Amino acid sequence: MPASDLSASPLFDAALTAVAPLDDAAGAAAAEHLDRLTKPPGSLGRLESLAVQLAAIAGEDPPPLPVPAAIGVFAGDHGVHAEGVTPWPQEVTGQMVANFCAGGAAINVLARQASARVVVVDVGVATEVPEVPGTDTELIRARVAPGTANLALGPAMTAAQVDEALEVGAALAARLVGEGARCLVTGDMGIANTTPSAALIAAFTGRPPAEVTGRGTGIDDERLARKVDVVERAVARVASAPGVAPREVLAELGGLEIAALSGFIVGGAAARVPVVIDGVIAAAAALVAVALAPDVAGYLVAGHRSVEPGASAALEHLGIQPVLDLGLRLGEGTGACLALGVVESAARILREMATFDSAGVTEK
Amino acid sequence: MPASDLSASPLFDAALTAVAPLDDAAGAAAAEHLDRLTKPPGSLGRLESLAVQLAAIAGEDPPPLPVPAAIGVFAGDHGVHAEGVTPWPQEVTGQMVANFCAGGAAINVLARQASARVVVVDVGVATEVPEVPGTDTELIRARVAPGTANLALGPAMTAAQVDEALEVGAALAARLVGEGARCLVTGDMGIANTTPSAALIAAFTGRPPAEVTGRGTGIDDERLARKVDVVERAVARVASAPGVAPREVLAELGGLEIAALSGFIVGGAAARVPVVIDGVIAAAAALVAVALAPDVAGYLVAGHRSVEPGASAALEHLGIQPVLDLGLRLGEGTGACLALGVVESAARILREMATFDSAGVTEK
Repeated sequence: MPASDLSASPLFDAALTAVAPLDDAAGAAAAEHLDRLTKPPGSLGRLESLAVQLAAIAGEDPPPLPVPAAIGVFAGDHGVHAEGVTPWPQEVTGQMVANFCAGGAAINVLARQASARVVVVDVGVATEVPEVPGTDTELIRARVAPGTANLALGPAMTAAQVDEALEVGAALAARLVGEGARCLVTGDMGIANTTPSAALIAAFTGRPPAEVTGRGTGIDDERLARKVDVVERAVARVASAPGVAPREVLAELGGLEIAALSGFIVGGAAARVPVVIDGVIAAAAALVAVALAPDVAGYLVAGHRSVEPGASAALEHLGIQPVLDLGLRLGEGTGACLALGVVESAARILREMATFDSAGVTEK
Repeated sequence: MPASDLSASPLFDAALTAVAPLDDAAGAAAAEHLDRLTKPPGSLGRLESLAVQLAAIAGEDPPPLPVPAAIGVFAGDHGVHAEGVTPWPQEVTGQMVANFCAGGAAINVLARQASARVVVVDVGVATEVPEVPGTDTELIRARVAPGTANLALGPAMTAAQVDEALEVGAALAARLVGEGARCLVTGDMGIANTTPSAALIAAFTGRPPAEVTGRGTGIDDERLARKVDVVERAVARVASAPGVAPREVLAELGGLEIAALSGFIVGGAAARVPVVIDGVIAAAAALVAVALAPDVAGYLVAGHRSVEPGASAALEHLGIQPVLDLGLRLGEGTGACLALGVVESAARILREMATFDSAGVTEK
């Protein structure tokens, strides 16, 4: 068999093919069901549109509860760190992976509250990640490379690295759903990763880099100007090559954890579970996923509106309203995890509320 | 002892006196603590301001978890229903009380998810409320009157009725905290109760009635015009009497469940627990409570931004940012209950996250 017939990312490619359109009939049944419940029609606002979406994803009304949820936190480093786009040292990525494993990070706290499992994946950390004994957070060592190349100077990843990272993400999604997860949550860690995210968002939405590049963890004006300049130069390389395929854009501008997140998102959609995405990193990964398989969009729930302008630009491009708007800019999956309770509530409304008939309540 | 020396609402009056300013030192300690946690400073946005508030309420950092929460759902009817301000028949108030007791309403579903207790109080329902056998939702029969008088024509309540309703609310707050609640949630049920709420909000904020009167459960333009007209005429009576005391404004424009909610809110603040308020009805009650005891404001968490314009006007007047914004307009305490998870997360962040030092993570 010639090498070109061998897929470098077989699970991911199968997931891409498996993503089915939402079940609109189940969604319509849920919408009609909502209007029979003991409340004025439409009075539960965003909860009602979420309820319809969950029914359309599951293909049944009422939909199953989206619990337990599982959070995939993908970690990677970025060659563009050398451009001074962030004041944080690169070793913090690996240190935070250790913190996740020890259960001390924000995502651990929020996941425990939500009874959600956290799986951390080193898909591209540049430094040594030590063993953390006695942890109940699983660490998957699936490092494709010790960080990306500097996207300011050339492609961040090779095509083979992209394929490998997509596969890591798709494989984890399939495994978590296989082990019982009924909702997937995207998490990320990677010092400097708002820079490749902004670049991907500019490339996929067509917005000017200055409009979608933000302050990340909180950089000053000088650093922001440098960051915008880097993003502009990188995006220009892609923009000057019309018709470039989504995987090539990802290779040129992306990150290993972003590629893995794209695989994770497609994997969740293929498994017909809601995928709750976090902030700007996940939004960039979602743009890639939807470019490769448009039906993925229906499976996405945006957990929150990140402070990063690129996140809002990406969500608008995807036609998705975020659930929460809490001024968050932490990443790790924190905003998505905070939204899980509301997503669960949407399913519970359909599963547990009385109807006007059953409760003997008069309609207007 | 002359009758005038006897307070008609002794628990409420004692609660008013007991409300203490927030503990700013504990709040400052929490703010400093937040900046040592393994995250960029400020990156948890609204969660951080909530965390500081919880510490200032409790007087310690980290604050205790605000669980279990208890929801007081106060139900009452309104004489102004006769003006045609809503298409819903008045008997729905009592029917929904029965639905609460049977566990079939939206607030029951959301409370179960939050492991929060629901106590329903008939403080002014106009119709018979039947016994619901086999329920685990407690119903308190504390009916002050079978609905208010028509506020379009004159005072909605007598001074004695206001005192009695305030007492009902304050007594329930004290009892729930005494029985272990570490957070109180306001709920309400009362067909037509967005009308008195709009009137109170116009009176306390000084905004024009047309600006703060909304569509409630979803009325058409004609009914809305009628509702605005009713509110304008009622508010004019109060506005023409300068220096009128908050309790008198409440008697003129309010509702029995709104007065009870004011008592409940003051009672929660007096007991130093966070009080998570729901939508426009609770916002009106909060304006009364804060007018009587300004320190109450620090104990309030606005669960969400209701669709009703009066809710936003009241929150702005109180200087409070809502936690959620989900386009809700149901009442019952639903929006407040949905926010409980986020409020709990804020406390958990302070209680459980690692610091840069403890986790060995480098700072920028």
